[in-house]
Amino acid sequence: MRDVNIALIGGGFMGKAHSLAYAAMPMFFWPAPARPIRKVVVDATDELARTAADRYGWERHSSSWQEIVDDPTIDVVDIATPNHLHAEIAIAAANAGKHVICEKPLAPTADEARLMLEAVERAGVVNAVAFNYRRTPAVVLARKYIENGDIGDILNFRGTYLQDWSADPNSPLSWRFQKKIAGSGAIGDIGSHVVDLARYLVGEIAEVNSLVSTWIKERPLQSGGFDTLGTAKVSSGPRGTVDVDDEAVTLVRFSNGAVGSLEASRNAWGRNNFLTFEIHGTRGSLVFNYERRDELQVAFADDPADRRGFRTVYTGPATPYGEALWPIPALGIGYGETKIIEAYELMKAVETGDRIRPDFADGYQAALVDEAIATSGATHEWVKVEPVPTGAHAQR
Amino acid sequence: MRDVNIALIGGGFMGKAHSLAYAAMPMFFWPAPARPIRKVVVDATDELARTAADRYGWERHSSSWQEIVDDPTIDVVDIATPNHLHAEIAIAAANAGKHVICEKPLAPTADEARLMLEAVERAGVVNAVAFNYRRTPAVVLARKYIENGDIGDILNFRGTYLQDWSADPNSPLSWRFQKKIAGSGAIGDIGSHVVDLARYLVGEIAEVNSLVSTWIKERPLQSGGFDTLGTAKVSSGPRGTVDVDDEAVTLVRFSNGAVGSLEASRNAWGRNNFLTFEIHGTRGSLVFNYERRDELQVAFADDPADRRGFRTVYTGPATPYGEALWPIPALGIGYGETKIIEAYELMKAVETGDRIRPDFADGYQAALVDEAIATSGATHEWVKVEPVPTGAHAQR
Amino acid sequence: MRDVNIALIGGGFMGKAHSLAYAAMPMFFWPAPARPIRKVVVDATDELARTAADRYGWERHSSSWQEIVDDPTIDVVDIATPNHLHAEIAIAAANAGKHVICEKPLAPTADEARLMLEAVERAGVVNAVAFNYRRTPAVVLARKYIENGDIGDILNFRGTYLQDWSADPNSPLSWRFQKKIAGSGAIGDIGSHVVDLARYLVGEIAEVNSLVSTWIKERPLQSGGFDTLGTAKVSSGPRGTVDVDDEAVTLVRFSNGAVGSLEASRNAWGRNNFLTFEIHGTRGSLVFNYERRDELQVAFADDPADRRGFRTVYTGPATPYGEALWPIPALGIGYGETKIIEAYELMKAVETGDRIRPDFADGYQAALVDEAIATSGATHEWVKVEPVPTGAHAQR
Amino acid sequence: MRDVNIALIGGGFMGKAHSLAYAAMPMFFWPAPARPIRKVVVDATDELARTAADRYGWERHSSSWQEIVDDPTIDVVDIATPNHLHAEIAIAAANAGKHVICEKPLAPTADEARLMLEAVERAGVVNAVAFNYRRTPAVVLARKYIENGDIGDILNFRGTYLQDWSADPNSPLSWRFQKKIAGSGAIGDIGSHVVDLARYLVGEIAEVNSLVSTWIKERPLQSGGFDTLGTAKVSSGPRGTVDVDDEAVTLVRFSNGAVGSLEASRNAWGRNNFLTFEIHGTRGSLVFNYERRDELQVAFADDPADRRGFRTVYTGPATPYGEALWPIPALGIGYGETKIIEAYELMKAVETGDRIRPDFADGYQAALVDEAIATSGATHEWVKVEPVPTGAHAQR
Repeated sequence: MRDVNIALIGGGFMGKAHSLAYAAMPMFFWPAPARPIRKVVVDATDELARTAADRYGWERHSSSWQEIVDDPTIDVVDIATPNHLHAEIAIAAANAGKHVICEKPLAPTADEARLMLEAVERAGVVNAVAFNYRRTPAVVLARKYIENGDIGDILNFRGTYLQDWSADPNSPLSWRFQKKIAGSGAIGDIGSHVVDLARYLVGEIAEVNSLVSTWIKERPLQSGGFDTLGTAKVSSGPRGTVDVDDEAVTLVRFSNGAVGSLEASRNAWGRNNFLTFEIHGTRGSLVFNYERRDELQVAFADDPADRRGFRTVYTGPATPYGEALWPIPALGIGYGETKIIEAYELMKAVETGDRIRPDFADGYQAALVDEAIATSGATHEWVKVEPVPTGAHAQR
Repeated sequence: MRDVNIALIGGGFMGKAHSLAYAAMPMFFWPAPARPIRKVVVDATDELARTAADRYGWERHSSSWQEIVDDPTIDVVDIATPNHLHAEIAIAAANAGKHVICEKPLAPTADEARLMLEAVERAGVVNAVAFNYRRTPAVVLARKYIENGDIGDILNFRGTYLQDWSADPNSPLSWRFQKKIAGSGAIGDIGSHVVDLARYLVGEIAEVNSLVSTWIKERPLQSGGFDTLGTAKVSSGPRGTVDVDDEAVTLVRFSNGAVGSLEASRNAWGRNNFLTFEIHGTRGSLVFNYERRDELQVAFADDPADRRGFRTVYTGPATPYGEALWPIPALGIGYGETKIIEAYELMKAVETGDRIRPDFADGYQAALVDEAIATSGATHEWVKVEPVPTGAHAQR
Repeated sequence: MRDVNIALIGGGFMGKAHSLAYAAMPMFFWPAPARPIRKVVVDATDELARTAADRYGWERHSSSWQEIVDDPTIDVVDIATPNHLHAEIAIAAANAGKHVICEKPLAPTADEARLMLEAVERAGVVNAVAFNYRRTPAVVLARKYIENGDIGDILNFRGTYLQDWSADPNSPLSWRFQKKIAGSGAIGDIGSHVVDLARYLVGEIAEVNSLVSTWIKERPLQSGGFDTLGTAKVSSGPRGTVDVDDEAVTLVRFSNGAVGSLEASRNAWGRNNFLTFEIHGTRGSLVFNYERRDELQVAFADDPADRRGFRTVYTGPATPYGEALWPIPALGIGYGETKIIEAYELMKAVETGDRIRPDFADGYQAALVDEAIATSGATHEWVKVEPVPTGAHAQR
Repeated sequence: MRDVNIALIGGGFMGKAHSLAYAAMPMFFWPAPARPIRKVVVDATDELARTAADRYGWERHSSSWQEIVDDPTIDVVDIATPNHLHAEIAIAAANAGKHVICEKPLAPTADEARLMLEAVERAGVVNAVAFNYRRTPAVVLARKYIENGDIGDILNFRGTYLQDWSADPNSPLSWRFQKKIAGSGAIGDIGSHVVDLARYLVGEIAEVNSLVSTWIKERPLQSGGFDTLGTAKVSSGPRGTVDVDDEAVTLVRFSNGAVGSLEASRNAWGRNNFLTFEIHGTRGSLVFNYERRDELQVAFADDPADRRGFRTVYTGPATPYGEALWPIPALGIGYGETKIIEAYELMKAVETGDRIRPDFADGYQAALVDEAIATSGATHEWVKVEPVPTGAHAQR
């Protein structure tokens, strides 16, 4: 088994999740396609980087991503920084011939995402975008049913991603509420996951029409820590302006004739990580709620009427990735497992050179959808989404 | 307690539900505001009418609604026919000075609904439209929370009404699939209930944008029975064209600034009577699913973080209408109870002369929304909804 | 269709439910086996009886059940009084040649239940005990699956009936907490329903071992109203002693080799009418919760592993009694429907003379189980349950 | 931060879970109390051990646990073997002065468990038993509510652990079905977890009465692999006798006056890892289902009646261990997290020398309960459970 040397840029929450994934992946997938080596972690300061190395088990640390990107011993650059740094790092890494995995959304703007895509294609390197929720075994099982034709042709998709960690007007103005860093608000941060699931399960989105709202227009300025997702304490200090969206509700028309809606909100009290979908096909339906992620619900039209209804299937050894994960269903899929599967797919691509999905083309396509949502929110009109112009990238 | 003489037009499924309501209402609400007397039932033929009278406990029967509407002993005309007959009967009844309750949607077109509204206003009679689902105690409780300000200002409403009884392409082309009788398909039949809930709980809908689909374009011609909702057997005989919608997915903008989406579909395998809403406010959220109608879920922002989450409240004696219904929560609210409460409110209005809600103004307003949805589905543009032009009718 | 004249003894909550059932039954079941006529209602005083007649639609009223039982125009005596009156009335009615339906539990003691059984058998009259929960369509569907062998041989049954309407120590000392009237507490009041479901679905209970507790040993003395189920206001007045049980947790061994447990409690905060069962068979499982009574969950061993899981089946036209009830699933089964089906089965038995189940033999058998539970709670030993000694009464 | 050298005995499914925990713990808990070093892994053959080391990231490997237990560089011996090896290894490790963590159940018999307890007490080493499910954050939150008195005094506990991975009579006769290796069947394998939760949340179990069943009396002899939990393929080959239980249903009486029931079954089709409890207290109730382990349901008596009901609380930063785990609720607790918390508590105990719970005294006490269950299953009598005779070990 070959060693693959990773450089991780960003030692925050996402850095932790990626570190876990690299450490744990071969424990689950064995023999692993390649062994990810936690070579070097980069953070904004030497102290942050040193702590990240110590905590997450990286051999070295650095406060200069530029040096690391040029380091000839590195095979893969893993970008887990705030959004506004993605493009610069990814392009430099690609130019240096490194494989790249980048957190989502790929970039604050579709333009930057395009540049990133061009860079990795030019360089011919493996490139992945970290839409980890499509790695949830129950989501992969949904796709398997769809590919088998088990629910017929898809008519309708409804997706939501609802949270409430920032529903309080006194939760701080972190980078996630600043356009220059994040690009957008709920649209890119969580809506992009719904877009990714829609594309993964149904197909390309051709057109959108959206209502985009910023419900909380000012938030307390943040002192101290970089990213306060979730754990932020409320504050009553001086306030700054929020220039991104809190919520988007969107109609979508798919290229293949299906229709649907997407809803992303950070103002949904009582919803924590409510990433859900419901899909109606001509021969059945699928329902998923990430908050109960071990389960997929499926209804088959062909069941006799007196025993027809949603089946609650728990993923496990008999469902995708299941033999590698835990030996019985409902032992418990957590967030980590989605990242472990992601790391497995990345190592497989690095080893084989095959395309990994979702890749930068997917990330760029999702960014185009996100941008269309934002545009429609401003213009109140249907906005077409251009397909990423290369056959290789056509989804499904 | 005064007797109020009812004439029921239509002895099908809805006639049964209304008959039950009149018989049972005083058993639940005591002393009743007035006692509904099942005086006469009308159906298309003498035989149908006789059977309806016998089965549903009406004193007399007739096959001529025209005669009945002129009968001086009748106080209330109750219209439970297919949609295309609503206007003619209601207008004649109003002109004859009868109070009127009419099944939903009020009429196949908004124009007819307007004529009906004008007739009852001219006549000054009590008028009600039978959007019974807002009578569900859990829905009334939701409204009470909202009116109390318990969830703050409403930001977002998502409503669905999903069924599958006609998802099979071999289910028959009943009147519900014929525009000249029904006016529209899922939009008027079930979508109108979602529109009613949205108006009841959030406020007036100002604008809509909709995707409207007819997924099954031909269905077997129906022989025999009039209305085959649900119990219809599939058939492989000759087919006719469906000229109404199967599904509508709609963005909505409310007059008060809230936004949201509505989804109505008769092609959602596994969903039976999936009338749901989720409402996000600045201080809390509400979730309801009619398939589990004894329950309302509510999350309050003010609960401490380590004990915050959706509370599943079962309606009962402590919640609206509860003292009249069953003595403990979860003994079981069924479809009948929604109609019994409806009958109670109707008798109260007949006795007091006070306005009942929802009335024809509400029915007309809902028809305007329905029509806007259909128009938007055809034009792919946002369509404004005019408010019914009388102060008296402003909702909330 | 023949008229069957009913005399109802007891105009409280149960009288209401029975009145509704008689009025509504032919509306649902048509042609009805016979038409129940609400002839006369009896209550403790003339005033109560008059109000009951007025409210529940009975032709006459009386404050003397003795007179009514001898009334030659009466066909059926329906006993909806507190438990301690059941035996005297039922025996008198049987002796007068009336058919009898009696609320559950059949009597405060098994001895009285036996006398009642002997009386109806001697008289050869139709006799029924009102275990209405086994009338829930989802429960009947469960039985159908079991009879079909769909879940194989039954291994295990777990049943619960949990409520909290009297969990507050300040809720009043109604008759339900007095041994001389009620016979027992949770055991007879709600536990008997679980026993009935266990017998209906699995078979005869051969032996029990029980933990019986009285958690609240004193309650405020009750002034005024007779039965304060659910709606009782808490009180801080003088207190009397509770001499019945609040809770029983019981191991059971069935005659056919299955095992299981029963739990009945009126001290389960948050549970309202939590009548549930879970049944494991050699080829599948069943799960039911009356609080969500439109649904039955069933898992089949024979489903392929990647699509196996509990199916949530909503009862409707395709399931037992469904054609008579509502035209699509989840329109909504309420408490009333269980009583309507009960009335239908009663009229069918009166018309045909066939045995109805559950009958007094079932009620007596349940009383024997209840008594064994109470005995075991006192002796801390396994207590055998004698089968009612007549072949005709063997369950299933 | 001090390094703590671990020797892992057993490289199967449990070895994987423990390896993950050691690797991931400091990533979550930082600064970690100590850093677990994956020093050496032992398995039955050199080849198995080499693979385990390679896969799970251990520095060395061995096929002789005896050698390893004497290795002076080892601080902690982690026993993840089949049950019959626990005692010998643990006693040797304790005698060699090593801290010990042992998988559950502590031993096949209570006698062996007692010897293990005596050995670690004699040696004065840290000792832990791996009842990981009490590490689930939602379970720890339940305990916090109870300790705060939020649900008052506990009246009743119902616990279940239901699975179906071996419900098929053709699933193989692995060591888990052989008394000489496993000691018992469902009782020790899964029932012991329920016993642990009952003791953790309610208190000591004083007495049990149990129905113990072996539903499948013969299973196919197993060729090849050691432990086939879950992933086993069914087989139609020659069969051997199962001499352990498949299921136990048990009444329990707690020392503090509470009562309840426990159910453990491996024959519950449709249940995967259905570890649940429901607890009724004088002021509230708790409900937990590990299959939806991010959630705890709690009902408070003090909530006003029109907003009372079970709250579904998702664990996260505001609940126990939450700051160390994931930044928002419902990001996803998996099986791994329960083991990561276990590793954290172990390292804390090793570092501080404080008692860890659950320890060998807890494991012995649970074994006494298990044995009482088995005895009662054979004798059909109540069986008292002796408290482990040392003040230090009294639970709670």
